[in-house]
Amino acid sequence: MKSENRWPRNCWYVAAHAHEITESLYARTLLNQAVIFWRTADGNVAALEDRCPHRLVPLSTGKTVNGVVECGYHGLRFDAEGACAYVPGQDTVPSGTHVKTFPVAERHALIWIWMGAADLADEDLIPDLHWMDAPGWSATTGYLHFNADYRLVNDNLLDLSHETYIHKHTIGNDAVADSPAVMNVIGRRVVRVHREMPNIEPPPFFALAQGHDGRINRWQIAIYMAPGFNMTEVGFHAVDTDRLQDHLMMRPIHIITPETDHTAHYIWGLTRNFRLDDEKLDAGIYDQTMATFNEDRGLLETQDLRMQAEGMPNLPNLSVKLDSGPVQGRRLLEAMIKRETDDPNYCEPPGLLADDDVVTMPFAMAAE
Amino acid sequence: MKSENRWPRNCWYVAAHAHEITESLYARTLLNQAVIFWRTADGNVAALEDRCPHRLVPLSTGKTVNGVVECGYHGLRFDAEGACAYVPGQDTVPSGTHVKTFPVAERHALIWIWMGAADLADEDLIPDLHWMDAPGWSATTGYLHFNADYRLVNDNLLDLSHETYIHKHTIGNDAVADSPAVMNVIGRRVVRVHREMPNIEPPPFFALAQGHDGRINRWQIAIYMAPGFNMTEVGFHAVDTDRLQDHLMMRPIHIITPETDHTAHYIWGLTRNFRLDDEKLDAGIYDQTMATFNEDRGLLETQDLRMQAEGMPNLPNLSVKLDSGPVQGRRLLEAMIKRETDDPNYCEPPGLLADDDVVTMPFAMAAE
Amino acid sequence: MKSENRWPRNCWYVAAHAHEITESLYARTLLNQAVIFWRTADGNVAALEDRCPHRLVPLSTGKTVNGVVECGYHGLRFDAEGACAYVPGQDTVPSGTHVKTFPVAERHALIWIWMGAADLADEDLIPDLHWMDAPGWSATTGYLHFNADYRLVNDNLLDLSHETYIHKHTIGNDAVADSPAVMNVIGRRVVRVHREMPNIEPPPFFALAQGHDGRINRWQIAIYMAPGFNMTEVGFHAVDTDRLQDHLMMRPIHIITPETDHTAHYIWGLTRNFRLDDEKLDAGIYDQTMATFNEDRGLLETQDLRMQAEGMPNLPNLSVKLDSGPVQGRRLLEAMIKRETDDPNYCEPPGLLADDDVVTMPFAMAAE
Repeated sequence: MKSENRWPRNCWYVAAHAHEITESLYARTLLNQAVIFWRTADGNVAALEDRCPHRLVPLSTGKTVNGVVECGYHGLRFDAEGACAYVPGQDTVPSGTHVKTFPVAERHALIWIWMGAADLADEDLIPDLHWMDAPGWSATTGYLHFNADYRLVNDNLLDLSHETYIHKHTIGNDAVADSPAVMNVIGRRVVRVHREMPNIEPPPFFALAQGHDGRINRWQIAIYMAPGFNMTEVGFHAVDTDRLQDHLMMRPIHIITPETDHTAHYIWGLTRNFRLDDEKLDAGIYDQTMATFNEDRGLLETQDLRMQAEGMPNLPNLSVKLDSGPVQGRRLLEAMIKRETDDPNYCEPPGLLADDDVVTMPFAMAAE
Repeated sequence: MKSENRWPRNCWYVAAHAHEITESLYARTLLNQAVIFWRTADGNVAALEDRCPHRLVPLSTGKTVNGVVECGYHGLRFDAEGACAYVPGQDTVPSGTHVKTFPVAERHALIWIWMGAADLADEDLIPDLHWMDAPGWSATTGYLHFNADYRLVNDNLLDLSHETYIHKHTIGNDAVADSPAVMNVIGRRVVRVHREMPNIEPPPFFALAQGHDGRINRWQIAIYMAPGFNMTEVGFHAVDTDRLQDHLMMRPIHIITPETDHTAHYIWGLTRNFRLDDEKLDAGIYDQTMATFNEDRGLLETQDLRMQAEGMPNLPNLSVKLDSGPVQGRRLLEAMIKRETDDPNYCEPPGLLADDDVVTMPFAMAAE
Repeated sequence: MKSENRWPRNCWYVAAHAHEITESLYARTLLNQAVIFWRTADGNVAALEDRCPHRLVPLSTGKTVNGVVECGYHGLRFDAEGACAYVPGQDTVPSGTHVKTFPVAERHALIWIWMGAADLADEDLIPDLHWMDAPGWSATTGYLHFNADYRLVNDNLLDLSHETYIHKHTIGNDAVADSPAVMNVIGRRVVRVHREMPNIEPPPFFALAQGHDGRINRWQIAIYMAPGFNMTEVGFHAVDTDRLQDHLMMRPIHIITPETDHTAHYIWGLTRNFRLDDEKLDAGIYDQTMATFNEDRGLLETQDLRMQAEGMPNLPNLSVKLDSGPVQGRRLLEAMIKRETDDPNYCEPPGLLADDDVVTMPFAMAAE
C-alpha cells in the first residue's frame, strides 16, 4: 500500500500545540516529512524541511541564531524563507541553495501546517477548533505518540463502544456498549455517532467532573472530520434535573496527525464549559485522560502490528452494527483522497464539528 | 527456505505444561500460528486462533467470561468451538462468524495441540512421555524460549559431545567427547546415540545427584523422536557396584516445539526414578538445568543468526563422526515431512523413546 | 550500492591496537568479514575467519588451547595456518578441512591485516604511522565504534571547519571555520588541507596542553590517506614566540577501518612531541578526545541513517568551498578502488602523512 494513499495533502494539519514552538528549534516528522519549526523575532512561526542540503544532516542538529537556523555540522545558515544566509569559509552563497518551506499558521492555540501544494494554502480552510482557546471554554491539553496507522486511531474514536472494554477504569461501563447509537453524515468530511445513556451510574471520570457519584443522564457524540480531527461531545446531568439548564459538557478534541505510515501524533485538548479555572480538576483530567488514551495506544499498536503482518487487509474484516461510524469515516477519507488524486488542485473545505448554540437533546435520536 | 518445509503438521505438538493453562487466557504462538488456550467450566482445555475476526486484534487482549472469550477491543465473544456467542449493540451475530479451533488434549501433564488437518487428530497418536507424571518417577519441569530454529536444538541434543565444551560447569567433562558413541535408528521417527563412560570423575551435577564425588560408571543415550521430542537417558552407579541393582537414572525430556521459523519453545521435564520427594534436590536440579540449557541457548542463538546470514546452508557443512546422530535425525524429519507432503492425509505414528523394563547395559554397545 | 565498491581490498588495514591482541581470542569484523586474532606461543599474531566449518558457529565461542583455537561447540581445533588439528571422537581429521587465514603484521603498535588477495600482501606496503610508537613521540590511544559508513568519518576529518559547530567545548571556536584553508593532493593516496589561525584565543584543549590561556598562533593540517588513514597535524605557539623553536605539536592519528557497510572502527592515537611522560596530561587528552570524537559519532550516525533513507546519494549534495578536501579525498578513494577493479593484482603503494623534518610555516599557505 502506497503512503500517498493514506492521507490527503491539500489540507491543514496540526503540527503541535502553539506553546511548544519557541525561538529554539523544534523537530517533528509529519506525513513522512521531517520538519523543523521555530519562532522568528516577530513571533511568527517558520517551518523548513529538517534537512541541510549540504551533507543531508538534519538542521535540527543545530540551533537558531538571530532568528535563522544554523546547521549543527558545518554552520550553514538558512532563514525563515529557506534561503541560504551564510556559508562559513566563503563570502557568497551558492546560487539556488534553498531549503523547502511549508505554509504555517497559528490558530486555536495550535500550530497548523500545509503539506500539499503551497500555493493552495488558504487559512480560511483551517478547521474550526475554537474550543481550544475560546472564552467560556477551558482546555486541558496533552500529547501522545502512537506507533499505529493514524486511521486506526480515527476508527477507534468513531466507535466508542470500546470504552466498555478498554476504559472500564475511567470513562467506560456497560452502558456505553449496550446503548444504541445513531450515525449521521454531514457534508463531505464529517460523521457523527450519537448515543444516549439515560439514568446510569457515573463512570469514575464523570463522578470526578460532577463532584459526586449520583446517577446521571449521559450522552455522547463521536464526531469525525477527515482526515484526522475528532471531537467527543460528552454531556450529562443528574437525573431529575433539566438538561438544557443543568447539563455539564466536555468536548474532548483528538487531533490525529500522521507521522509516518505506521506512527501518529495524538494532540489532544479536553475542553469543557464548566469550572473553567479549577486547576485541581485540570490535573485530574490530565491524569485520567493520559491513562485512558494510553489504554487505546497499547491496543492500537498491537492491532497495527497484526495488520502489517497480515498485509494490511481492509477493516472491518467482519462487519457489525457498531462499525457504521468507522466505516462511514473511512469512506469520507477515501473520497477526499480520491478527489485530490483526480484533481491535484482540489482542496476540500472543512466541515463543522459542533454548533455551540445547540444543546444535544435526547429526542435528537428520533430526528436522526 | 519455506516455513512449511521446516516441520510436519499432522502430528501432536506440546503447547505448554498442563499447569500453565487455567481459566484465564494463555497466548502462545506455535508453528507461526498465534493461539489462545483456556479451561472451560468442565476443566477441558480449549484452543482458538488468537485473532478476532472483527478488527484483527488478538483475542488475548481480552479475558474469559463464563467460559467464553471476550475480545479486549469491542467485546465480541467466542465460545470454545469458535462460534460467535455475542456482539455488543445487536441481538444477532453475523452468520458465518467463526474463529479457527484446534484439537487439543491433556496427557502426561502436558497440553497437546494438533496444527494439521483437524479430522486426522487422533489421541492415539500422542507420543508416550509418561515419565512426566507416572508413578515411580518425579519430574522437575521448566521452560525456556530460544531464538533459534527448533531443528538446531534437536541437532544439539543428538550430539552430546558438546557437553564437554559448553557445559563444563555442570554435566560435561572430557569423558563425554572422548567416549565412542553408537547410533541406532528405530523405526521412522526415533534415533538413539548411546555412549558409555566407565570409571570417571563425576561432573558436578552427578556429584549432586549421587550425594558424593566418588568415581562413577556413567552411560548416556541421546534419543530423538521427530519432529521435536528428545530424551537424554542418563544412568550411573558408583564403580564397584552392580549396574542392575545400584544405578540411578534420570530421563530428561526436552520438548522442542517450533514457535516461528527462527524461535522455539523448550519445554522440559527432568525426570528421575530416585529421591522422588526430595524438594531440595528438585531445586538444585532446576537451577543447574536452567543454567545448562541457557548455555545451549546462547550458542544456538548465535548459530541461528550466522546461518540466516549465510542463507541457511545445510548442516553439517563439514561431516565428522559425532554428526551421525544429528544427520540421521534430520533425515527422519525430512522423510516425515516428505511423506506428509506427498499424502496430506498421512500421519506418522509415534515411536518409543524408552522401555522402562530395560536397563541399558555396557555390552549393549557391542550389540548395537 | 554494492559493498565491494566502498573500499579497496588489496591494502593493509588496521584491525586493532597491538596491546589488544593477547593469547586469548579476540573477535572483530572487518570489511564485512568476521575474524579472530590471537598470539601464538612465539608471540606472533594469527588471524582466522571467525567461523567453524563444521556447524558454522563463530570460533570465538571457544578459546585457545596451547596456541590453537578450540571451537566452543564441539571442540574442533584449528591452528594458526587454519589447518584442522583435532576432531573429538575420531583419530583423523577430514581431509581438506581448513579455515581461511589472513596475512597479519604488527607495526607501529598496531595490528595490520590484509583482506585482499593473500599472495599480494607485502609488509612494505604498510603505511608509515611511526608516531604511534617512535622515540620523541608519545601516543594517548583509544577506540570508538561508529554506526556510520567509514567514508563519512573520513569526510568529517577532511573538513575541520566542523570543529566550530560540533566541538565548541573542546577544540573548536569561530577561528576554525573563519580561517581560509588550502588544499593539496600528494600522489595517489594523500590529500592535505592546511589552515592558519594567527593570534587567537586558545580553545579549552589548547589551554590545557599549553598550561595557560594566553593567545596563540595555531595551525592545523587535515591529512588523509585513502582508504581510511587520517592525521590532524595541530601546531601552536604563544604569540610573540618563534614557531620553529617554540611550537608544540600534536599529530592525532585517526584510523578508520570499515567494519560493515554502515559501521566503522575508529582506532586513534593522539600523538605529541612534548611532555612525553606526563600521565596527567595523558588522562586529560584521553577524556577530551573521547568526548570530542563522541560528538562526531552522534552526528555522523544521524547522517548515515538519513543517507540510507535517501538511498545513499552522492555527497556533497551542495558544494561549498570547505568541501574541497572531502571531495578530493573521495576522488582518490574511488580511483584507488577502480584501479583494483580494473586489475585485481594492483596494489596502491602508501603515501606519506607527514615529514618529521619539516615544520609547517605560515607562508606555506602562499606556496600551496
